[in-house]
Amino acid sequence: MDVAPVATPPARLLLGPGPSPVHPRVLEAQARPIVGHLDPWFLEVTDQIAEMLRTVFRTHNRLTYAVSGTGSAGMETAVVNVVEPGDTVIVGVNGVFGGRLADTAQRAGAEVVALEEPWGRIVPPERVASALKAHPDAKLVALVHAETSTGAHQPLEEVGALLRDTDTLFLVDTVTGLAGVPVEVDAWGLDVVYSGAQKCLSVPPGLAPITFSEKAEAVIDRRSTTVRSWYLDVTAVRRYWGGERAYHHTAPISALLGLHEGLRLVLEEGLETRWARHAEVGALFQEHIQDRDAELLAQEGHRLPQLTTFALPDGIEEAPLRARLLHEHGIEVGGGLGSFAGRAWRVGLMGEGATHANVDRFLDALDELLEG
Amino acid sequence: MDVAPVATPPARLLLGPGPSPVHPRVLEAQARPIVGHLDPWFLEVTDQIAEMLRTVFRTHNRLTYAVSGTGSAGMETAVVNVVEPGDTVIVGVNGVFGGRLADTAQRAGAEVVALEEPWGRIVPPERVASALKAHPDAKLVALVHAETSTGAHQPLEEVGALLRDTDTLFLVDTVTGLAGVPVEVDAWGLDVVYSGAQKCLSVPPGLAPITFSEKAEAVIDRRSTTVRSWYLDVTAVRRYWGGERAYHHTAPISALLGLHEGLRLVLEEGLETRWARHAEVGALFQEHIQDRDAELLAQEGHRLPQLTTFALPDGIEEAPLRARLLHEHGIEVGGGLGSFAGRAWRVGLMGEGATHANVDRFLDALDELLEG
Repeated sequence: MDVAPVATPPARLLLGPGPSPVHPRVLEAQARPIVGHLDPWFLEVTDQIAEMLRTVFRTHNRLTYAVSGTGSAGMETAVVNVVEPGDTVIVGVNGVFGGRLADTAQRAGAEVVALEEPWGRIVPPERVASALKAHPDAKLVALVHAETSTGAHQPLEEVGALLRDTDTLFLVDTVTGLAGVPVEVDAWGLDVVYSGAQKCLSVPPGLAPITFSEKAEAVIDRRSTTVRSWYLDVTAVRRYWGGERAYHHTAPISALLGLHEGLRLVLEEGLETRWARHAEVGALFQEHIQDRDAELLAQEGHRLPQLTTFALPDGIEEAPLRARLLHEHGIEVGGGLGSFAGRAWRVGLMGEGATHANVDRFLDALDELLEG
Repeated sequence: MDVAPVATPPARLLLGPGPSPVHPRVLEAQARPIVGHLDPWFLEVTDQIAEMLRTVFRTHNRLTYAVSGTGSAGMETAVVNVVEPGDTVIVGVNGVFGGRLADTAQRAGAEVVALEEPWGRIVPPERVASALKAHPDAKLVALVHAETSTGAHQPLEEVGALLRDTDTLFLVDTVTGLAGVPVEVDAWGLDVVYSGAQKCLSVPPGLAPITFSEKAEAVIDRRSTTVRSWYLDVTAVRRYWGGERAYHHTAPISALLGLHEGLRLVLEEGLETRWARHAEVGALFQEHIQDRDAELLAQEGHRLPQLTTFALPDGIEEAPLRARLLHEHGIEVGGGLGSFAGRAWRVGLMGEGATHANVDRFLDALDELLEG
């Protein structure tokens, strides 16, 4: 073909389920000249990233790094390293990402016990307790902390306490949770926890922060079969991240420089301050959207502030309205997935996007479209 | 931890086995504001990337895209999508990356027939022909076109001709080959071919261009087992790239904007011009390095111009010299891997790095260090 034209992005306010708006400092970091992935300077940068991730995950876990792929690569890394064929795994399925976890575990050879709940509901901790009684040999329990398809905010502490003194691991998807709502990896007894760069960390998509507890590392060290993925095998990757710095695969340098700067911004703000900002902005948004006859779809008392799903008032077609919001107002929001498709919107107020000004801008645009 | 300091990279001339130097236009593209991965504007950008990749791969293959991971993720994508447990696969193993292919295929459940050759040698096409006679049911033959660990340049046309009218697929690793030496996917009958962004395309690491022939797609469509990887499963990924644009995983927006600009640079130069530049600069370098009593390690007549392995003259310790080259002259080259470790250097003159000026700068620095 001919040379394509320069790709100059249109201005968008990203208020969908991710990616979230990116701070100019992070974009600038991605434009720095690159160095080699084994350069002593770059290895220091990776150490700093790992250490900042430990702070954000609230953990002392040695094996803490960023997977060279998006959040779903983080999910696959979490699963394939601890699961061996024939293992029983208990998975909460109350939205797209619980379903994806179950699928990923099956592909790794697991026998999946799916705890299905209606979309928008949490998985009650007592259901997990019953499942564990029925399957005391379960290799792991997997729950989605922040279900991006529904906006449900899964409580984790009770299940963590239940598993702490057992041989069962606790695997948690906090792709949309990390840095937006409290995540306490050590205090809550979480063993394998992954996230994504492009949600409340406000870094472009392409990296998946992950952490493994000592208990999880011990399970990995006792594997009797080879990890099914070469690319995601932590027994090799950990020799680069924090190990003897052996070459495994070429680290995505520019993306990691972006993550480094994004983590600096998170820590400059302070984690608690950032959680409080998300809580306040999200509550304000949920109050105002209900004033407009929208129905919140996540279970009351268990709603994420940073990601809200709601059904539009009756009689409004969601897709054409969403397209107008994008094209006339430059605002991106997400449509519903799965059982919410065709009737719901997903609005993310994540990371840099979680501001009063963005709530106002969104509501003004919506009001104008609904009146027009 | 405290906030890490700003990560300001030191100036490096990247003449190792990759990453290669990146053009400022590509770095600038990575700093553009991002949009959503389902934004109609961005979907056009992905179409343009796919079309430019078809030009670079010399193919009309519909299923042509960039895997959201580094070259090794491209390798794993190639393997896991066409291999099913119990399949026989024939793999040429004459360096690190052939070995990695064999490992990846085994993890996918394949019975691997390894055609081992000494490091630096090619795999003779007649060895492949004999192996095919012994294993007529082989699912695929896998060869490394440009062995980054040795600098060997594998011929592909004879094997392609051999396989064209059979049921056996031809899988090719051209991570270090693409855009540096001729790659003719359609004309040579290659079925599954992957590369990496950070070699002769001169884009930062993090993406793996890949293409599947119709024959390969038909094999995938006839699979009786699920692909072992969720993240890399092309039956789902192809619904985003070029399909109905369904969400699979969040595409790495900034990295793709960088690749888009990098492909524009490649096509502006012209593919044949770019091949000729690599050939000329590489030949010049290999002539001059031999003048300094370095011994080229790849087989004569089958040497890549863009990646040269050589043994330093006797009595020179490679690691301290390489460190001085980095710290005193700001030039990165690679050490030897595997059987070349401790005695060889790997010098890449790839993409933006393949210039006469860089050859001069490297040789001047080396001469100074060896005299000093």
